[in-house]
Amino acid sequence: MSTVRLWTDEEVANSPRVKAVFDDIRATRKSEFVNNFWRALANQPALLERTWSSIKEVMFKEGALDPLTKELIYIAVSATNGCSYCVHSHTASARAKGISDEQYAELSAIIGMANETNALATALQIPVDLQFMVE
Amino acid sequence: MSTVRLWTDEEVANSPRVKAVFDDIRATRKSEFVNNFWRALANQPALLERTWSSIKEVMFKEGALDPLTKELIYIAVSATNGCSYCVHSHTASARAKGISDEQYAELSAIIGMANETNALATALQIPVDLQFMVE
Amino acid sequence: MSTVRLWTDEEVANSPRVKAVFDDIRATRKSEFVNNFWRALANQPALLERTWSSIKEVMFKEGALDPLTKELIYIAVSATNGCSYCVHSHTASARAKGISDEQYAELSAIIGMANETNALATALQIPVDLQFMVE
Amino acid sequence: MSTVRLWTDEEVANSPRVKAVFDDIRATRKSEFVNNFWRALANQPALLERTWSSIKEVMFKEGALDPLTKELIYIAVSATNGCSYCVHSHTASARAKGISDEQYAELSAIIGMANETNALATALQIPVDLQFMVE
Amino acid sequence: MSTVRLWTDEEVANSPRVKAVFDDIRATRKSEFVNNFWRALANQPALLERTWSSIKEVMFKEGALDPLTKELIYIAVSATNGCSYCVHSHTASARAKGISDEQYAELSAIIGMANETNALATALQIPVDLQFMVE
Amino acid sequence: MSTVRLWTDEEVANSPRVKAVFDDIRATRKSEFVNNFWRALANQPALLERTWSSIKEVMFKEGALDPLTKELIYIAVSATNGCSYCVHSHTASARAKGISDEQYAELSAIIGMANETNALATALQIPVDLQFMVE
Repeated sequence: MSTVRLWTDEEVANSPRVKAVFDDIRATRKSEFVNNFWRALANQPALLERTWSSIKEVMFKEGALDPLTKELIYIAVSATNGCSYCVHSHTASARAKGISDEQYAELSAIIGMANETNALATALQIPVDLQFMVE
Repeated sequence: MSTVRLWTDEEVANSPRVKAVFDDIRATRKSEFVNNFWRALANQPALLERTWSSIKEVMFKEGALDPLTKELIYIAVSATNGCSYCVHSHTASARAKGISDEQYAELSAIIGMANETNALATALQIPVDLQFMVE
Repeated sequence: MSTVRLWTDEEVANSPRVKAVFDDIRATRKSEFVNNFWRALANQPALLERTWSSIKEVMFKEGALDPLTKELIYIAVSATNGCSYCVHSHTASARAKGISDEQYAELSAIIGMANETNALATALQIPVDLQFMVE
Repeated sequence: MSTVRLWTDEEVANSPRVKAVFDDIRATRKSEFVNNFWRALANQPALLERTWSSIKEVMFKEGALDPLTKELIYIAVSATNGCSYCVHSHTASARAKGISDEQYAELSAIIGMANETNALATALQIPVDLQFMVE
Repeated sequence: MSTVRLWTDEEVANSPRVKAVFDDIRATRKSEFVNNFWRALANQPALLERTWSSIKEVMFKEGALDPLTKELIYIAVSATNGCSYCVHSHTASARAKGISDEQYAELSAIIGMANETNALATALQIPVDLQFMVE
Repeated sequence: MSTVRLWTDEEVANSPRVKAVFDDIRATRKSEFVNNFWRALANQPALLERTWSSIKEVMFKEGALDPLTKELIYIAVSATNGCSYCVHSHTASARAKGISDEQYAELSAIIGMANETNALATALQIPVDLQFMVE
């Protein structure tokens, strides 16, 4: 179904460069499971390294936003982009990070609502209020 | 610039139906300022009432997600949709709700990163892992 | 503001190929005013000819949908794409074709609602019902 | 496939709040069939109620646009958003409301054309003509 | 799965108008295979003729961009739009036109990167530099 | 207009971390001009460093695609996303890299055409041909 081959664990084991990233993914997430996204990127080692290193910094490094909040933002982007793979993988991540049914229900409601008001603002071409401008 | 007229406070005062919504917006947000979005919707009272009542329920009612997290999700949708008005108005809301510079920096990084990996997943047409399916 | 020069009427007059299209635009729409979209395309005569000929066939030829309905569909696409120019120009066309305030209010409400339910369907990754499949 | 469970009729029967909405959906549409969208929203009763009540007001209440025209606008938004579920369900609705093959053919042509000219307007960053501005 | 019937070769043979387009597609591409996109458009002969004639002019006529570069641009648009069918069909075309693994790897990296920086520019609402304006 | 402050050269000079990136941007592009995108990212030094380092690898490192082709892909993504800033900045880059008027005309035509056929494929929900599947 994908436009590129998805690497099996055997193939990964034969490429030291790819294996190093997969090892780090497994260690960072504390799970043996590596999803298809990384198996597809394995065809492009430089892109694999760069993408994982960015994801690790943005999503796994301790920062000012807690890990679950980060996933909610990711899901919101993914649903708005219509990316089926991304919605599924990040909803799974949010579940793994303990999202409650109430939180998930509110998340969907906000995603729906935000897309509605976005469309209204665009359809009506509403000018930005001066009060919202920086400086 | 908008495709409809933006109502002034004088015009609002002359329409009891619109005035009732504007009064509730001011009371709910504890602020005299009512932004252009609502002044544009004032041309369509039924849409104004329905939209405000949904926004009030989704964004202002106490729930499982805190108010700032809700705004971050809203900004993520707005940036992904390319809605300039919405980015500006909800970034202003996030500032009013106390977002720190570090939180805002992380938010932008996630929005950028999510759009990158979404595009990669779509370009490579990566199939959804069975592990991500419900049931 | 545009990435290409917008042709003036003087420049148009000096290019027989571009002039032929502008003459047909004026005759078909029964109006001297030619908007910036066509003045930008004038830089690429083949694209100008092909685009105008398609627009003329799709939007001006008598068919199964009436002219105003066609504009409503055009506006819905434009708002969803976030194309400011297109929202403005097709809202102006809809007004020229006699859209009432009530019709415009309903159009915005549907555009907003459709974007909300689209986002919900995508966020929840709802599978297509068998009943909706052709054959 | 979905990120949430789809409610069966048995489950619906056991939840008075959800059952009330499903009953109204069946009565309003004069059909026993309730599609997956509502079975997914059943997990979030407040969202289910709010969404159905909005859809009923926007799509089923008699207004200034006829029911088929409303569906055409919905399909145009759904195709532009790339929402597969929404394209399928609203195309089915349009067929139920009697769309002819000629009307459907024109609808697709406009959706294609509008997305083409939207992309051209954005690629060339064409400035909005003064004539299109309100006031 | 589609909302319209996909024409078989037998049906095509019985419609001179559709057959003429299919014959030209086969002759232009030097291949007997005609993909589902054209079999769906066959239901709307005028749209079929207009779309094929545009594709032939834009994608097959010798011009200033080489055929492979044109496909890369097409894939970039398709991935950004989230159009699964289009990503698959134009990736197949790019392979037929000899794209190397290295070129494909770079293409994906640019598509990902461009979507990331697009989202950042929109999230931060960065104003266009005067230096980028024409005139 | 932006949601964050745009750093002046004086401010950049006072932050060694930001200055190092700006120096590398100027050296890599052989130009004193640093556009607003980087002046906005300067508020988030980690994001600035990561984004510049990715852009440098993807867009400036010699690879399998020539520099102008890369810009065409970037413009195609930016126009499809409706990112005004990105369309302007990468069109300026394409001009700096010597794009001819004929190449630019063909680029716009492909962007328009691809968005049209994408919308048609989605509106008609055309299933992917088996021949396009990998393996």
